[in-house]
Amino acid sequence: MAPPSAIDVTGETDTSGITIPDPLSAPVKSNEIFGRRRKADKSQWGVAAHADTINFRQRSYDHKPKAKQWDHIISKEALSRTGSSIKQAAKYLAQPGLISLGGGIPSSEYFPFEELSFKAPVVGKFSEQETKETGVTITAGKHDLAKDKSIFDIATAFNYGQGSGATQLLRWITEHVELIHNPPYQDWRCTMSVGSSSGMDMAFRMLTRPGDVVLSDEYMFAATIQTAAPMGIRFAGVPMDNEGLLPSAMDHILTTWDVNARGARKPHLLYTVPTGQNPTGATQSLARRKELYSVCQKHDIFILEDEPYYFLQMPPYTGADTAVPPPPASHTEFLQSLVPSLLSLDMDGRVMRLDSFSKVLAPGARIGFVTASQQLIDIYHKHADVSTQNPSGLSQLIFFKLLDEHWGHGGYLDWLIYLRGQYTLRRNVILKACDRYLPRDVVSWKPPMAGMFQWLQIDFRKHPDYPEKGVEEIEERVFERAIQCGALVMRGSWFYACAEEEHGTLFFRATFAAAPFERIEEGIRRFGKAVREEFGLGRREENGYLKY
Amino acid sequence: MAPPSAIDVTGETDTSGITIPDPLSAPVKSNEIFGRRRKADKSQWGVAAHADTINFRQRSYDHKPKAKQWDHIISKEALSRTGSSIKQAAKYLAQPGLISLGGGIPSSEYFPFEELSFKAPVVGKFSEQETKETGVTITAGKHDLAKDKSIFDIATAFNYGQGSGATQLLRWITEHVELIHNPPYQDWRCTMSVGSSSGMDMAFRMLTRPGDVVLSDEYMFAATIQTAAPMGIRFAGVPMDNEGLLPSAMDHILTTWDVNARGARKPHLLYTVPTGQNPTGATQSLARRKELYSVCQKHDIFILEDEPYYFLQMPPYTGADTAVPPPPASHTEFLQSLVPSLLSLDMDGRVMRLDSFSKVLAPGARIGFVTASQQLIDIYHKHADVSTQNPSGLSQLIFFKLLDEHWGHGGYLDWLIYLRGQYTLRRNVILKACDRYLPRDVVSWKPPMAGMFQWLQIDFRKHPDYPEKGVEEIEERVFERAIQCGALVMRGSWFYACAEEEHGTLFFRATFAAAPFERIEEGIRRFGKAVREEFGLGRREENGYLKY
Repeated sequence: MAPPSAIDVTGETDTSGITIPDPLSAPVKSNEIFGRRRKADKSQWGVAAHADTINFRQRSYDHKPKAKQWDHIISKEALSRTGSSIKQAAKYLAQPGLISLGGGIPSSEYFPFEELSFKAPVVGKFSEQETKETGVTITAGKHDLAKDKSIFDIATAFNYGQGSGATQLLRWITEHVELIHNPPYQDWRCTMSVGSSSGMDMAFRMLTRPGDVVLSDEYMFAATIQTAAPMGIRFAGVPMDNEGLLPSAMDHILTTWDVNARGARKPHLLYTVPTGQNPTGATQSLARRKELYSVCQKHDIFILEDEPYYFLQMPPYTGADTAVPPPPASHTEFLQSLVPSLLSLDMDGRVMRLDSFSKVLAPGARIGFVTASQQLIDIYHKHADVSTQNPSGLSQLIFFKLLDEHWGHGGYLDWLIYLRGQYTLRRNVILKACDRYLPRDVVSWKPPMAGMFQWLQIDFRKHPDYPEKGVEEIEERVFERAIQCGALVMRGSWFYACAEEEHGTLFFRATFAAAPFERIEEGIRRFGKAVREEFGLGRREENGYLKY
Repeated sequence: MAPPSAIDVTGETDTSGITIPDPLSAPVKSNEIFGRRRKADKSQWGVAAHADTINFRQRSYDHKPKAKQWDHIISKEALSRTGSSIKQAAKYLAQPGLISLGGGIPSSEYFPFEELSFKAPVVGKFSEQETKETGVTITAGKHDLAKDKSIFDIATAFNYGQGSGATQLLRWITEHVELIHNPPYQDWRCTMSVGSSSGMDMAFRMLTRPGDVVLSDEYMFAATIQTAAPMGIRFAGVPMDNEGLLPSAMDHILTTWDVNARGARKPHLLYTVPTGQNPTGATQSLARRKELYSVCQKHDIFILEDEPYYFLQMPPYTGADTAVPPPPASHTEFLQSLVPSLLSLDMDGRVMRLDSFSKVLAPGARIGFVTASQQLIDIYHKHADVSTQNPSGLSQLIFFKLLDEHWGHGGYLDWLIYLRGQYTLRRNVILKACDRYLPRDVVSWKPPMAGMFQWLQIDFRKHPDYPEKGVEEIEERVFERAIQCGALVMRGSWFYACAEEEHGTLFFRATFAAAPFERIEEGIRRFGKAVREEFGLGRREENGYLKY
């Protein structure tokens, strides 16, 4: 794929759809950000140095409103956080010439690592094969900072850090958030997380108390339930359609909330995955998001926006035999093709957005980032300082070298455009296989617009044993039959937001992210065989293809 | 330093001092462990594969007792953990030929990393300068596992993992724990943590409920208080002497515990740092540890053994002008020189030991490990799966390459012997500086036997403003005066286990871990100047040296 020119964002990247005059800020261009960076005090590149990300923002925010304060929903645990007194003593280190016998920080001479290198693709030659052939080796030295060769090195990255992560990478992340989301309030801040699962764990401990009910998509990422349930949190699933959560249904739930019947105070928190939702694959349209935000304003709901799949948005599916549309011709076109985030609509500072590098760079790095109002990011930072600490410095150093020093913002957008193309191909493979191998009498599906998942609905009423056997039993039988046929798909009931409620639907989740293309096709063929066998449907084979 | 031969552990390494006949197990020798490894099923090296560390132990444990069950102290939150249903679906992947459209795990072809290399010292040439000159470059490829070049690679390590960490490194850790601690009960297990701060956070959530009082050393690591306090936990400090916590004092506290007066149920948990305690530098002797364990048995106390400094044990200090004793002549001698851990005395399975690589390899890697009974490790794993997940796979891959494939167990012990020598030199530098620059009229100290900290007691009664000014005010004045003189040391009051109690003592903590040797000396000189100024003591300068 020929890459768009690395610097070609020619317009204002605010695609939020909300018109807030921003006359003070010039258009922000992707790699040009580097040229606009303010001069940074060198002390903030040091070991466990404190960062204030406000200095890394390119625009002026003075004319924008301030975030609401959230004291009324912040937990006792979170309100009582004082942070780490030892890390706070770091403030004295600013005194010139001071000798610190303070922090128990080991000397970097005892890190048995002298050099760290990795091979990464150059912009535009992103495939595994191209990387092997034309990739470049990027090296971090041990004392590059002291030698003025780089602002980040082994001596710094391999030592202790702040709970928000190293300033070096946090700057890039703040710039990225501003470029993509341009939040419409003043006091937004970023911190790194050690991944969004941990971010969610910390967010629930910050914003709930035992017994609370949290609103969510009716089918939701099971691990989030398993994160929250031991804290005494239950979820109330909001009905969904092909565009995800229905704001009117949420409004109804909230308006008619009966504390006694529900056994919980009225919800103050919504957990949602707006883009390529897991497990349904649904993507909320801009209109849907605006409507959702407005219901949240009406009932003063705080939003946890969990967005691992945000950059895996795809062009519409136009059928098995039509060509994949060309990639966006420019960064601007790419950014304009993305449905605006809830964060980008968030005039009140009522969104905590969790971003992840897991689906777009590497899950094993355990680096994510969180954007919210300063009040909440400060609490997050204080909690991280005494629990998870910062993400691995080894991961951070490698990501910094790749994202800041090698690709830049423009090159990263090109990488995302490449990934989008790859996931589009994968989605089209699974849809073509569904068209070919699944019995339409029983299975129905919609093409996802983002993410990794194909959501497959089964008409359980057509099962020969229905209604003697119920939905869950039929689900289990199809699941087991699919395993026998050699295909693993996930059971929809594993994703119920609220397992106690009645669900008159039966779904399976199939991912197109992991397997090689031909294995995706074969997996769907096997699943189709299992469904047909389980539902007693005949099949006809013709020229090697299955017909119905 | 010439290294001891890499394979020379000739005897049984059980230095626990407890005689449990172990006729079934042959002596375990450091690097020979590799030759004794059982053949491992290749599937456990795969992406997010499940490990059962029992297979990685060299000895037989059949004749040892089983750990006690801890249901009566495990929190409601922890008891309700079900783990991640999605990760549990991984069990189906064992079926040959199965195509998984299950887990939303990205394909490694979309990790933009082709190769990862680092330069590390060869065994015996460990200094930074030697590493630069003779270090070797170690490389991990992307698909080494598929090519049978290694059992760990980028494709695996950079993907999702189990909460316990990757099997590859977990095997090495389990072997290491057996080699060093040889726990005297059957069902001990290991898991990785994302560092001991996180381990402590998870342990408190597992083993306490709001309102609990936890026993601890009278002065303790401040961050642990800051981890626990927001959960509603307070600490009851147990008086200490130069060998740390006094078991008789703990027995007295427990025996006379008054629920009403204390406002809390009788403690069931002890948090302690037995070796090179932070901040006091105290190291519990073997006799002290046995006595402590026995008081814990008497009152059924569970022990959190936090041991970041365990391998920084040093020979006794013999004065400023005597030579440093030679390093241990063999691995056996080194292992025998270590005070046995509480884990190695733990017949009941009442110890959760937290180990850290932060002080011996690199804090930035954010890898620690936890050893406890299977019951508790299973809960830990389930919690990690839905919060922190595994430590960074990038960190794990680098540590695996270094510890398993490059150094082996023997080489790692050699590294630890090298570090011990370095910290001994550093400790001697600070002690010599204390001898030279601190006014003995007012400051007193004991040489630490382990760790990173010199604990300095100030006789506040000699302060000219005492008793008009109290202990804390005098502490603050000395602290501020030291900053003015250009030295940062930590205030003892920052480490009170219980700040509300009266403390008739005044301490400062100085670390010898971080600064270059000559800066340590200068830092202590400045601190001495501050104390003298603050206490109105004269000084006499002679040949550039300060005399009293």
